[in-house]
Amino acid sequence: MLHILFFLSLLFYASNGAVQDFCVADLTAPEGPAGYSCKKPAKVTVDDFVFSLGTVGNTSNIIKAAVTPAFATQFPGVNGLGISMARLDLAPDGVVPMHTHPGATEVLIVAQGTICTGFISSANSVYLATLKQGDIMVYPRGLLHFQINSGKTPALAFVSFSSANPGLQILDFALFANNLPSALVEKTTFLDDAQVKKLKAVLGGSG
Amino acid sequence: MLHILFFLSLLFYASNGAVQDFCVADLTAPEGPAGYSCKKPAKVTVDDFVFSLGTVGNTSNIIKAAVTPAFATQFPGVNGLGISMARLDLAPDGVVPMHTHPGATEVLIVAQGTICTGFISSANSVYLATLKQGDIMVYPRGLLHFQINSGKTPALAFVSFSSANPGLQILDFALFANNLPSALVEKTTFLDDAQVKKLKAVLGGSG
Amino acid sequence: MLHILFFLSLLFYASNGAVQDFCVADLTAPEGPAGYSCKKPAKVTVDDFVFSLGTVGNTSNIIKAAVTPAFATQFPGVNGLGISMARLDLAPDGVVPMHTHPGATEVLIVAQGTICTGFISSANSVYLATLKQGDIMVYPRGLLHFQINSGKTPALAFVSFSSANPGLQILDFALFANNLPSALVEKTTFLDDAQVKKLKAVLGGSG
Amino acid sequence: MLHILFFLSLLFYASNGAVQDFCVADLTAPEGPAGYSCKKPAKVTVDDFVFSLGTVGNTSNIIKAAVTPAFATQFPGVNGLGISMARLDLAPDGVVPMHTHPGATEVLIVAQGTICTGFISSANSVYLATLKQGDIMVYPRGLLHFQINSGKTPALAFVSFSSANPGLQILDFALFANNLPSALVEKTTFLDDAQVKKLKAVLGGSG
Amino acid sequence: MLHILFFLSLLFYASNGAVQDFCVADLTAPEGPAGYSCKKPAKVTVDDFVFSLGTVGNTSNIIKAAVTPAFATQFPGVNGLGISMARLDLAPDGVVPMHTHPGATEVLIVAQGTICTGFISSANSVYLATLKQGDIMVYPRGLLHFQINSGKTPALAFVSFSSANPGLQILDFALFANNLPSALVEKTTFLDDAQVKKLKAVLGGSG
Amino acid sequence: MLHILFFLSLLFYASNGAVQDFCVADLTAPEGPAGYSCKKPAKVTVDDFVFSLGTVGNTSNIIKAAVTPAFATQFPGVNGLGISMARLDLAPDGVVPMHTHPGATEVLIVAQGTICTGFISSANSVYLATLKQGDIMVYPRGLLHFQINSGKTPALAFVSFSSANPGLQILDFALFANNLPSALVEKTTFLDDAQVKKLKAVLGGSG
Repeated sequence: MLHILFFLSLLFYASNGAVQDFCVADLTAPEGPAGYSCKKPAKVTVDDFVFSLGTVGNTSNIIKAAVTPAFATQFPGVNGLGISMARLDLAPDGVVPMHTHPGATEVLIVAQGTICTGFISSANSVYLATLKQGDIMVYPRGLLHFQINSGKTPALAFVSFSSANPGLQILDFALFANNLPSALVEKTTFLDDAQVKKLKAVLGGSG
Repeated sequence: MLHILFFLSLLFYASNGAVQDFCVADLTAPEGPAGYSCKKPAKVTVDDFVFSLGTVGNTSNIIKAAVTPAFATQFPGVNGLGISMARLDLAPDGVVPMHTHPGATEVLIVAQGTICTGFISSANSVYLATLKQGDIMVYPRGLLHFQINSGKTPALAFVSFSSANPGLQILDFALFANNLPSALVEKTTFLDDAQVKKLKAVLGGSG
Repeated sequence: MLHILFFLSLLFYASNGAVQDFCVADLTAPEGPAGYSCKKPAKVTVDDFVFSLGTVGNTSNIIKAAVTPAFATQFPGVNGLGISMARLDLAPDGVVPMHTHPGATEVLIVAQGTICTGFISSANSVYLATLKQGDIMVYPRGLLHFQINSGKTPALAFVSFSSANPGLQILDFALFANNLPSALVEKTTFLDDAQVKKLKAVLGGSG
Repeated sequence: MLHILFFLSLLFYASNGAVQDFCVADLTAPEGPAGYSCKKPAKVTVDDFVFSLGTVGNTSNIIKAAVTPAFATQFPGVNGLGISMARLDLAPDGVVPMHTHPGATEVLIVAQGTICTGFISSANSVYLATLKQGDIMVYPRGLLHFQINSGKTPALAFVSFSSANPGLQILDFALFANNLPSALVEKTTFLDDAQVKKLKAVLGGSG
Repeated sequence: MLHILFFLSLLFYASNGAVQDFCVADLTAPEGPAGYSCKKPAKVTVDDFVFSLGTVGNTSNIIKAAVTPAFATQFPGVNGLGISMARLDLAPDGVVPMHTHPGATEVLIVAQGTICTGFISSANSVYLATLKQGDIMVYPRGLLHFQINSGKTPALAFVSFSSANPGLQILDFALFANNLPSALVEKTTFLDDAQVKKLKAVLGGSG
Repeated sequence: MLHILFFLSLLFYASNGAVQDFCVADLTAPEGPAGYSCKKPAKVTVDDFVFSLGTVGNTSNIIKAAVTPAFATQFPGVNGLGISMARLDLAPDGVVPMHTHPGATEVLIVAQGTICTGFISSANSVYLATLKQGDIMVYPRGLLHFQINSGKTPALAFVSFSSANPGLQILDFALFANNLPSALVEKTTFLDDAQVKKLKAVLGGSG
């Protein structure tokens, strides 16, 4: 039995040299370029590695859609591990408007319904598809893409990202929902002044 | 109109300098450490970026489970993009046996049923959970983990990986389904000779 | 003297084990996720590492601007080295329209003139600045940004990227200069039909 | 002499802009996904970069083997540099049991004695070798492998890892030396109940 | 209008999950292997992303040259983004002596004058060029290189690096401007004792 | 038995989706920025993963030292895995002259004898140590360093690198053993003309 204790103590010595296979986010400590600081291993529990995307998002809004993220901020277990998820709910006629993820590739899987989706490449090619339950699509990192419920029933999709913090830049928000002056929007997008002002009014932008 | 053509030609010149946002796998060309060679952009179509995981896997087997991968080999659009997926079907009492993905973190989402699952860390802590529909769990890179259908109905899950080629090392296959000599298995696992030979017989191993 | 030859032969043996500090792009060989294949070291010359951005771009176009890239495709020496450059010429009133680089951070330095520029973050904050000669600005990876000549003389800037192949997605091209159907553009951007069709006509888009 | 001082002051200005070629681990500050925080450069000494693996490990244990790590936790100079080492002592008949390093490739060099070793790939191929003094072997990242002293004298090996914190998951510990319930071990490994309970008893596992 | 507020609140919820597209350096918080800690997003302003390299460096020194860095320490906006810049001023006959950047590839663009420059590869090939205004050259990571003003007027160049903290090791400083004992310098470089002592005296080295 | 065959066929299907845990170098196929192309898995044998550094290097040369590399070119199994090794033999008074590895951190372990060694940082600090058997030292990426046998008996060390292709730039070779013109060497190093010409003659340089 003595030998066994030696076995345990000696090899655990080695094992303890590598306590960190993961770095569960400690949102109260400094954040660095690679992500949040790590919680002390002794404080980590299975709850850090489990999250629920089981609640239907509220689609009673103008886009009839909801995005529920499970990024490192919400789901601390993925911090530093190069992956995260989100849930997409689309009521009939719902749309996730044109957007990009500045730091990640996305893969989408349709769990319910039918989704018309696509992305546009740097070479300006359009890749469009209509996805049914069980279909997956990949959107390469940083490219404009969108999802539309093209069926008559609610659609549900789950998306995964190649980053624990993929970012999300919604085109209409970037152009019309902040204080970027209308003159600059018009100059850099060739949109008409009336169009810009109309969408600024709808989305709460100023300037 | 002349100006517009200038606009197009000049800026597309810049744009063409960056034709590759992606590197769709060309399985017939050389493979390198970062993945497969890229298909010529002109030959890429939307079909390269879409794949179906919509077919129920055949669970009429000893483990009552099936894994359907959408890695770069099956789903060429993810090549080089640091992400991939797979589908898990588990009949009642089905199990995806203890395994690792040598090169990737995994995130699982339960689409149907109830799954008992867990992983073991380098520090030898066990993180166990029972997941219901909509729950997600992350398994940090390279650690032993498993999934069991703990409900009475078929379970379905989709898993995402932080690599286009995550690898899959099933423990029982590594120990009992190849020509690794029984003496070496026993010496390095402390399993009894009878146990090793029994499982080698079941799984088709020799030696 | 014999010893010296030994010195040379033995240590060069080691040195030759590491012939590749670089991977000059061979545009005729397969491309992979990490970049182009490498030219044979014996065929590499200093010309592979030198490129001219000394020619003023032609700004006689609708945007009164020109972008001249020195990405791996044009400048093979940067292949695999995680950096590249481009030249920006902006006539008075010229504009580089709203765009992103899906795979790279950009740093710009003003060589001549005055440039009004900015980017929008994922959190929808706007970062705007007017840059004079010698000023530099960084645009984090994947975010929408633009440059406008806000002076009365031609402006010249040089930009560097954190990738040998940064990509370039010009917003107006992605929305209006390809075959993405107008209905989808409208649905995913909330732009009016007349606006979309007007810009599609200007930029040569169909659908 | 004035010029020389200028020389020093001006160029050191540049040099001081890049004080950190390394990030010696400060074990008292927050840890992040990329490793430990850095000690202040002024407090770094050569002792941070030097470590001794010169002491023979205590092999008076059940496996007749000892692993002495020089990971970032023990050897702070390697923090953030993507490399670390360990020492392996194997008495005659000693064994480093089946294990993986979740986050690193390993290269082993035999300093004394004879070592029988091998790894198993994802494709379930077995790569076995008997190594003599001066032989090296590489074990790709995350795959199961082992080392056995197959000679009649003590064996000594040094191993290097492609990470400052490679992790170490010993199969028997993961299965039998924690509180993972026997029923789950059996269900996910197909091992017999008696076998599992026997090894749990030996290795101190519960459940 | 209610719907619009829903739209904003729901989607910003998603957006806020990804507040950090950047990690502006907080020089007062812990530094890690991936760079400085991040300033709180709310404290970030456009000034963090803008820096001036517009001031001519003081070349009244022995090398008739000046290097003005815009690395993460000076220019906090580039922290974690894999890119940085510097300004080179070279009076006639000025020289940036033989040096390396341990952690980055460099690209140089000539803004004024004529620069004779080159690098030496691991395979001991010399790549030499004389650059005029608008010419760019890439120096692969970690290799010895230099710049000389080979014209009759002041030269100005801007350099970009593939790291926010590229490092700078000036050969003469490493050999002659510290306390590395002369005997070790001579033994490891084959330089004569008189030569070493002469340069140590000039550059302020001891030992 | 039928069930078992199903088990094998179904799960191997998954397993075969991930055939490549490694990328053994095929020296006859194109090389890319991430390394050599991969040998077909079916042609890979254990010999690809094993290499001998067991032969004493020939130290009958001017530096009384020999370096025997096991980089990807010599040892194809490490290709793409971010690690490699080399053997250092130093006769009494032998020296591995001042050098850098442009692309890798190095860790050295002394197997026999006594080695005086050190490196110089970007901040121009000198880190010097005398290592005995079993001592290890880390040399951060890209910094000048050297090794000297400071004992009376032959010294042997093994070094590991954080890259499969670390590069090796020997300072004297870069300055004196190629066609870099003496005038440029002198201008960029402040060495005297006589010193430069003397070493060019010894080392076979021209110009």
